[in-house]
Amino acid sequence: MPAVSQRAQSMPASPIRKLMPYAESAKERGITVLHLNIGQPDIESPPEFWRAVRTTDIKTLEYSHSAGIAALRAKAAEFYSRQGIIVSADEVIVCTAGSEALSFAMLGCLNPGDEVIVPEPLYANYLGFSCAAEVNVVPLTTRIEHDFRLPSSEEFEAKVTPKTKAVLINNPGNPTGSVYTRGQLEQLRDLALRHDLFLISDEVYRDFNYTSEPVVSVLQLGGLERHAVMVDSVSKRFSLCGARIGFFVSRNPELNAGALKLAQARLAPPTLEQIGVLAALEAPASYFDTIREEYRSRRDLVVSRLRSMPGVRVPQIDGAFYAMVELPIDDGDRFCQWLLESFQHQGHTVMFAPASGFYETPGVGHRQVRIAYVLNQERLDLAMDCLEVALAQYPGRLEPAARA
Amino acid sequence: MPAVSQRAQSMPASPIRKLMPYAESAKERGITVLHLNIGQPDIESPPEFWRAVRTTDIKTLEYSHSAGIAALRAKAAEFYSRQGIIVSADEVIVCTAGSEALSFAMLGCLNPGDEVIVPEPLYANYLGFSCAAEVNVVPLTTRIEHDFRLPSSEEFEAKVTPKTKAVLINNPGNPTGSVYTRGQLEQLRDLALRHDLFLISDEVYRDFNYTSEPVVSVLQLGGLERHAVMVDSVSKRFSLCGARIGFFVSRNPELNAGALKLAQARLAPPTLEQIGVLAALEAPASYFDTIREEYRSRRDLVVSRLRSMPGVRVPQIDGAFYAMVELPIDDGDRFCQWLLESFQHQGHTVMFAPASGFYETPGVGHRQVRIAYVLNQERLDLAMDCLEVALAQYPGRLEPAARA
Repeated sequence: MPAVSQRAQSMPASPIRKLMPYAESAKERGITVLHLNIGQPDIESPPEFWRAVRTTDIKTLEYSHSAGIAALRAKAAEFYSRQGIIVSADEVIVCTAGSEALSFAMLGCLNPGDEVIVPEPLYANYLGFSCAAEVNVVPLTTRIEHDFRLPSSEEFEAKVTPKTKAVLINNPGNPTGSVYTRGQLEQLRDLALRHDLFLISDEVYRDFNYTSEPVVSVLQLGGLERHAVMVDSVSKRFSLCGARIGFFVSRNPELNAGALKLAQARLAPPTLEQIGVLAALEAPASYFDTIREEYRSRRDLVVSRLRSMPGVRVPQIDGAFYAMVELPIDDGDRFCQWLLESFQHQGHTVMFAPASGFYETPGVGHRQVRIAYVLNQERLDLAMDCLEVALAQYPGRLEPAARA
Repeated sequence: MPAVSQRAQSMPASPIRKLMPYAESAKERGITVLHLNIGQPDIESPPEFWRAVRTTDIKTLEYSHSAGIAALRAKAAEFYSRQGIIVSADEVIVCTAGSEALSFAMLGCLNPGDEVIVPEPLYANYLGFSCAAEVNVVPLTTRIEHDFRLPSSEEFEAKVTPKTKAVLINNPGNPTGSVYTRGQLEQLRDLALRHDLFLISDEVYRDFNYTSEPVVSVLQLGGLERHAVMVDSVSKRFSLCGARIGFFVSRNPELNAGALKLAQARLAPPTLEQIGVLAALEAPASYFDTIREEYRSRRDLVVSRLRSMPGVRVPQIDGAFYAMVELPIDDGDRFCQWLLESFQHQGHTVMFAPASGFYETPGVGHRQVRIAYVLNQERLDLAMDCLEVALAQYPGRLEPAARA
């Protein structure tokens, strides 16, 4: 019997999805599971999207250009330029979601065995893409007690080796909710220039920003023309997770040529979804204002409920729609499984993502869980009720003395 | 300036698309380009697909399951079973087109540096995926004078090394139009068992079969439960190239577990297109009968026109919708470019894919071009007129004496 490849064996299972069988089993027992484990917003996708896909008069659904429909590339460039990120259409490659843009960045910037420094906790799927690309993720641990802020230049410096080829950040952060400041990013820019590293920035949550300052894109930092790669997606911004449309954006012509060859190998991104997204990009700015205010209220609700629970540590959360929190429990994996297997509160339970899958360094953050606040406030409130009751009942809870 | 990765640099440009700038320039000069360079059928996609995507009452386009919508996996398994390929829904993973299924097969079966034996001329994108996966393609040349038939067991045997982990075939073949017989496939099965190799079979053209015998799937060969992987797609069968929906099908539970982890890393295939494909799979069998008859007529037309042209060598073509032919010219790349740059016939020219990109062995097949007969018969006839006139005018044509 032929052996499955090493990379398929060592590929991490998704921490977001690995508890799904327990959730399905809870549902079979009649329990309502409140899904705060996955970043699937409940907001309706823009009507412009639906109108475009419903009214298209295409008869044959053909391949698009490998880099995406020309009008969509132009529209995306215009969209970015309105946000102060000045790029041209040929610096934008339409991808099958941010996932593929990330994969193009990994494959295009790094050789097998090369190292990419990534602040952790990190978006778990970075580990999957790096495994497929045979690239080594070098984690740089950030701390909940420091609000998971971007590490200093010196901390990054200490991780640089001759194999380092890139730094990968997620801003605003999943799972941390951090938004990096211009000053922090400029330090990172200087490091990238000093060591000639690619700076890959996953900015899919850019519009989910609850601070008074705009989020600074890596493409807005001077001097990084050859070093900066922005990974973007419409999944969160337009509540179009299922559309699988994202963007790889860079001003480095050699890198773009490489990404285009990767794009040609898989032929094209989905055509119909591109047609819908082209229309969605024309949605009025007010479409997103409402959404941001809704998420701000959700954040406020979740943070305030969590802060009222004894022994729960909540960092400052400025963006995205996640809270990485530390609970007074023995272990996040066990707790999340117990919630699905052995707990209910008035016929409900809640599903979180254990933090273990978001750390590459073993053992770090083992009391943490990630909460995606993607449900309406009534259901979020109910989910927080569940958590509060569960923390009192959970056999592996830490008593106040042990928490010190 | 950081260097782009080696794999991005060595990634082959798509031979199907690299001449596009010349085609665009011809169009700007007012010339109509007949596109026989890419496997984009002109047939209309099934009305069932359009009805489903237009009438869905979804408001939020959510992620599907990483392995695809459960109903679609079940429907695909039922579809295969009707064709005599008995698989269960959990042996089917929905992919973002056959491209992704191929990529999962490469990444899941082979480690970096491992070898996969592939008969050539081969589907050019195999080279792109193998490059991204750091896998070495070992080509096994097949000959136009033998109708590109599957090499014998002995010929495969001669290519096996300790690094060989898989054989990859395309049946029916792109670019060759070959359909492999059960006897040939059984020889290959025995080889796979003898050397414990994965046998990956790209069967996206299975329904484009003009022989009197059904195409034999690799999943219909006994004893290969752990070794066989079928790569499939709806792109050609349902004229849904732009939908980007395909299937990875295997009965090997370890391999399927690995493929599922790869699937989880990229989250999900496009949701809306899955909804449409689920409906398309319910199209009556007669939908495809009409298409097959149309393609059979196109094949007959193209083969008969080509056989009437002096010095043109045409193999037997039993399936898919391609003809790999040898022309009385100095070089396929130069000829294809000349057709776009310097030729026209009554305001038209024709675009083919030069064969060089379909061979991994340098220099082989340099007088060959691939013709995709994906236009209606009137336009195909016009394209053949163009070719006939072009062969008489082309400065690099071989005179009859030189052809011997």
